[in-house]
Amino acid sequence: MLDLSNERTAYDRDHFFHPSTHMGTHARGESPTRVITGGEGVRITDSDGNTHVDAFAGLYCVNAGYGRTEIAEAIGKQAHDLAYYHSYVGHGTDASIELAKMIVDRAPDTMSRVYFGLSGSDANETNIKLIWFYNNARGRPEKKKIISRWRGYHGSGVMTGSLTGLHLFHNAFDLPRAPILHTLAPYYFRREDRSMSEEQFSQHCADALEAMILEEGPETVAAFIGEPLLGTGGIVPPPAGYWPKIQAVLDKYDILLVADEVVTGFGRTGSMFGSEHYGIKPDLITIAKGLTSAYAPLSGSIVSKRMWEGLVEGVDELGAFGHGWTYSAHPICAAAGVANLKLIDDLDLIANVREVGAHFRRALHDALAGHAHVGEVRGEGMIAAVEFVEDKDDRKFFEPGKKIGPQIAAALFERGVIGRAMPEGDILGFAPPFCLTKDDADLIVARTREAVAHVLG
Amino acid sequence: MLDLSNERTAYDRDHFFHPSTHMGTHARGESPTRVITGGEGVRITDSDGNTHVDAFAGLYCVNAGYGRTEIAEAIGKQAHDLAYYHSYVGHGTDASIELAKMIVDRAPDTMSRVYFGLSGSDANETNIKLIWFYNNARGRPEKKKIISRWRGYHGSGVMTGSLTGLHLFHNAFDLPRAPILHTLAPYYFRREDRSMSEEQFSQHCADALEAMILEEGPETVAAFIGEPLLGTGGIVPPPAGYWPKIQAVLDKYDILLVADEVVTGFGRTGSMFGSEHYGIKPDLITIAKGLTSAYAPLSGSIVSKRMWEGLVEGVDELGAFGHGWTYSAHPICAAAGVANLKLIDDLDLIANVREVGAHFRRALHDALAGHAHVGEVRGEGMIAAVEFVEDKDDRKFFEPGKKIGPQIAAALFERGVIGRAMPEGDILGFAPPFCLTKDDADLIVARTREAVAHVLG
Ligand SMILES: Cc1ncc(COP(=O)(O)O)c(C=O)c1O
Ligand SMILES: Cc1ncc(COP(=O)(O)O)c(C=O)c1O
Repeated sequence: MLDLSNERTAYDRDHFFHPSTHMGTHARGESPTRVITGGEGVRITDSDGNTHVDAFAGLYCVNAGYGRTEIAEAIGKQAHDLAYYHSYVGHGTDASIELAKMIVDRAPDTMSRVYFGLSGSDANETNIKLIWFYNNARGRPEKKKIISRWRGYHGSGVMTGSLTGLHLFHNAFDLPRAPILHTLAPYYFRREDRSMSEEQFSQHCADALEAMILEEGPETVAAFIGEPLLGTGGIVPPPAGYWPKIQAVLDKYDILLVADEVVTGFGRTGSMFGSEHYGIKPDLITIAKGLTSAYAPLSGSIVSKRMWEGLVEGVDELGAFGHGWTYSAHPICAAAGVANLKLIDDLDLIANVREVGAHFRRALHDALAGHAHVGEVRGEGMIAAVEFVEDKDDRKFFEPGKKIGPQIAAALFERGVIGRAMPEGDILGFAPPFCLTKDDADLIVARTREAVAHVLG
Repeated sequence: MLDLSNERTAYDRDHFFHPSTHMGTHARGESPTRVITGGEGVRITDSDGNTHVDAFAGLYCVNAGYGRTEIAEAIGKQAHDLAYYHSYVGHGTDASIELAKMIVDRAPDTMSRVYFGLSGSDANETNIKLIWFYNNARGRPEKKKIISRWRGYHGSGVMTGSLTGLHLFHNAFDLPRAPILHTLAPYYFRREDRSMSEEQFSQHCADALEAMILEEGPETVAAFIGEPLLGTGGIVPPPAGYWPKIQAVLDKYDILLVADEVVTGFGRTGSMFGSEHYGIKPDLITIAKGLTSAYAPLSGSIVSKRMWEGLVEGVDELGAFGHGWTYSAHPICAAAGVANLKLIDDLDLIANVREVGAHFRRALHDALAGHAHVGEVRGEGMIAAVEFVEDKDDRKFFEPGKKIGPQIAAALFERGVIGRAMPEGDILGFAPPFCLTKDDADLIVARTREAVAHVLG
């Protein structure tokens, strides 16, 4: 590797097209280039030698924490033994087979098989294709629409960006596209009718879903997709009773349920899967991030037994499943997954999610819930958010142009802690690595309190 | 890692959903499970201890060959130093910055920046979104259709599968979807009017493209996508004069050109890029496979200077580019790319592509072109195909149900060599690692001759 200390900024601005970045300000040097060089536990180091507490675990993905030699060694070993072979037409490697088994062992009982991809986005592409193939196989070619939710995040492809229900990911890209529809976000704090109880609001969401299905015609609606706990849309746990009520509507009209567990899968909520945590019975589960703790790119679609049977029946008539990524079940990524899931077990990290996560959320609540501009402190397991409002009693939000969320995230960054300003609303999100200690939790809370005071008094 | 020798087949059939595999026969154990355990140069080893010459380099991707410790070490080192940090909002790692620079240095002069993805498919998703964003930025919101070609292969997502022009990838999935259109495949051997010269046929393709553009309205057509050399659709080099004629039509109507170089990029044709090899001037270049020789999943969209300027202008008005994959520019994958591109240079592997590739194609031609059922032997650099016909003079093809291509590939596999039966037509494809020796080339040709004789006499 070259020593890039002199050229890195120039190369970066001139040649590297960053995701979710303002191209103009970045290329002109008006916004910082940040080069990360190492990490340990919940901390990362940059090329200027600064250390930051990463309270968002990358993009809520480095669940096991940074610097895990067990995973690095598994990756290195697989790279030396066999870096690549494809998994088309019945091929595989021990790592990919072992990982498929480990995933199904951890998933709800009703699940059966794993189709591997690279990203959460491509796993949701696979899900869409599986849903359409399945309904073609079952002789229901008109049952193809997919209902998603406003504020859902399901990826950045043309169709997965359509599943996403956030304006930043639609604007300027001509999304969403048919046949994707969006129903209400299960966002109790932002409910229109503030007199509703959580249960009433959940019923209201289920009623709105049913009304949409009836309006479209149940025979045209194939599936519903949702994150067990809304992630990028604001880190919002579901209101009481939400999932059972939604599930009942879907069952009534024979509509498949996709649980997008890219964030919640493998422990983030304190349970192995969010589906388990909230009593969801999915036909498909999307997994990515926590599967490898981001040590290598790997995603998957876990298919239920029921759906698998329908697919197998269809395949004789429709022909082999013509869907594949060159790097599906990539050996290095599968080896990372095997090592990561073992480490999560061996260190009992999900128990730490429950214990330290509860401590962290309690401390965050105690420190901030009383602040005049804090509307809500919420979360589950090791994921939490603070939502800011201009006026608490009237639940009046700040003008988006004021960029209160980004300002607070920047003030927090100045204080050595990385949180994330969620893209819609003034919401500061946290999703630290699972190995967070109580001391570091307290540190994050203290710095957050300071950052909030700095921006909002 | 568990010793899987006893359970691997059961785990595989019960839990691993393989790409492009007949689910029923695989799950029922009617088709083989093949577990690959190691590789060296052009050879791979399976769990039964058998060695095979991989004359398709995985899925034409292991360009540098198997067992390259230089790449494995770079991966292992990066995994220990920093396995992951994201590249959103101006973040990066030295590996990703260095690789961006290396790619642009190798690409045609007119290119400017690299957006990283994981798969060839997601890079083409990015391209579609870039094209739409660009035309929105330029105030041409109705200019959105994308013209692809029959027999093109551009991925397996909903939209990239739509770009693809092969029936296997459309059937049963309700593809292609709007606004994707398909024009003629540049497949001289399969031309309808056999009296045409190559130049005439190229003109005919350009005329058909122009007619489609005029029919649709040039103000609605945003882009044209094509592989410099048709890959999965049959391994077909373009007929003489094809690209300049196509380019002229696109220029006339201000239509962007995407060169999908997932297969041709980084040396497969004997030039660094197919665009260079055939004199194509793309606005976007799709890269994947050869970028890392498949040692880790990595893809990219190389954006031209011209297009970058249009994007930057748009971004102030349209807002930050809301498009990202969590694993964009993944450090481990970028480190693999850096090590791979260095190795390709250090070992002068592209010179070997030219020299041994020419030897291989000549030997293949000499051995098979005279066979009564061989319609054509074709190729370029280190990629080649043999197309089989029932009747040579009438250019009558075999009934697809006879599965002549798959039968020959199976007979070749029995003889220790892996070729690929291309999905449409009876075409046996070869794309060995770049480090192929003349002796191994001769071995592949000899075994192919035997396999053809076994199936067709
Ligand atoms: C719930 C959910 N689904 C899908 C995705 C997309 O994953 P990726 O960025 O790996 O494509 C994300 C990414 O944040 C996510 O949070
Ligand atoms: C020309 C071309 N484009 C795109 C792709 C898709 O790449 P991936 O399988 O990595 O998604 C391929 C794969 O074979 C390809 O050959």
